[in-house]
Amino acid sequence: MNEMSPLRPSETELWSPEKFEAEIRAVGVERYHDKHAFHKLLHGGKLNKGQVQAWALNRYCYQEAVPRKDAALISRTHDRALRREWVRRIHDHDGFGDEPGGLERWLILTDGLGLDRDYVVSRQGALPATRHIVESYVYFVREQPLVVAVASSLTELFAPSIHRERIAGMLENYDFIGDDVMAYFKRRLTQAPRDADFALGYVKENAATRAEQEACVGAVRFKCDVLWAQLDALHHAYVVPGLIPPGAFVPT
Amino acid sequence: MNEMSPLRPSETELWSPEKFEAEIRAVGVERYHDKHAFHKLLHGGKLNKGQVQAWALNRYCYQEAVPRKDAALISRTHDRALRREWVRRIHDHDGFGDEPGGLERWLILTDGLGLDRDYVVSRQGALPATRHIVESYVYFVREQPLVVAVASSLTELFAPSIHRERIAGMLENYDFIGDDVMAYFKRRLTQAPRDADFALGYVKENAATRAEQEACVGAVRFKCDVLWAQLDALHHAYVVPGLIPPGAFVPT
Repeated sequence: MNEMSPLRPSETELWSPEKFEAEIRAVGVERYHDKHAFHKLLHGGKLNKGQVQAWALNRYCYQEAVPRKDAALISRTHDRALRREWVRRIHDHDGFGDEPGGLERWLILTDGLGLDRDYVVSRQGALPATRHIVESYVYFVREQPLVVAVASSLTELFAPSIHRERIAGMLENYDFIGDDVMAYFKRRLTQAPRDADFALGYVKENAATRAEQEACVGAVRFKCDVLWAQLDALHHAYVVPGLIPPGAFVPT
Repeated sequence: MNEMSPLRPSETELWSPEKFEAEIRAVGVERYHDKHAFHKLLHGGKLNKGQVQAWALNRYCYQEAVPRKDAALISRTHDRALRREWVRRIHDHDGFGDEPGGLERWLILTDGLGLDRDYVVSRQGALPATRHIVESYVYFVREQPLVVAVASSLTELFAPSIHRERIAGMLENYDFIGDDVMAYFKRRLTQAPRDADFALGYVKENAATRAEQEACVGAVRFKCDVLWAQLDALHHAYVVPGLIPPGAFVPT
């Protein structure tokens, strides 16, 4: 007999703002990519230069997708105040006027690692998985309900601690990494909390049903998976078993 | 017998930049909306206040779609230089920092016409046709090849003369239109040529085949149709035969 059990009130009632935020933060505790084996290797100084190069050029693809997903979000909302707030994220990555932006700072990192800039920008050496995974993030933001799309940015809540760890760990552990090339992460220490505060306030205010709240938590989970899966692909190609797909970057 | 005649070289050869530009400009001569009956009435002082209100609140929907289609374009390109250039268009409409932007200036126009601002922004009183037509422009830019999407902006080549005409005609002919409310059009006199020059250079450089060049000309035609069809809908609803669809703005 195919019987559906009715949902209990605890499964349908709107979460309080505090409970909602706690559910979002719990996702980070469970699956933010600071827990990934590859990150532990990266921060702990256990990778060789070729592996750090592979990480940096693949991560460029993700960085480059971010202003595009932010533009996708702007393209969908009739809320001018939201658009005016969100457009600053595009500037943070692409730069605007005299401000070079995060992508330019990322290229200073890849320059510092001895990678050819045109090669990095071309994304030709990136793992196929990287390209598909980051593009799925752009599609998610373009197609999911607006509040869910906003929620997918909330991994920024978890970013400052990983950036602080990364700056310290990479400076300490790699003689090929200097202070100047870590400029990207230093800037994100102030940008990410500002953005995360706004987005967290937005989803708390605009997720109007329990189903929407759960979809927002799901969006944070989705986004953690976007980050995690990129490291899986790097780990598989460049650490264990070290099987680099055809066409992808081969360290020399 | 189903016989296909082979294409002659004149039908497949790349146009020279001059010929390509001439083809684009010819579209404006043929079908830019300055030739529409409704515009002649608008500029000639032949509309009553209710009809001008209807125009202004419908046109708000178009204005509001423009930064969204610009964001859609940014979301699709890996070319950071193009994104940095194009993001200024979002600012021109949405404003940025202290600059209020074109939508704010448009609302000064609708304020001046005695329309409630929340009602205008809600788009509730707009004609259904207006909403569908402007959204099809956003979809076009999101989905067509990038160079074709850029080309659809090229109606700006034809805009300054219509804006000059509109400023003079509306100030002269309507006692309910003052200098201050025409700020939107005055600003566009300088913004539109800057943008059009960039976009024209871009399509000339990036349309690499005759087929792409023709698709760009088609995009200008598409965009002229977007503008024309909005005036058809206004003319039908508010002039002849004056059949206002259910739910749309009814002048008092």
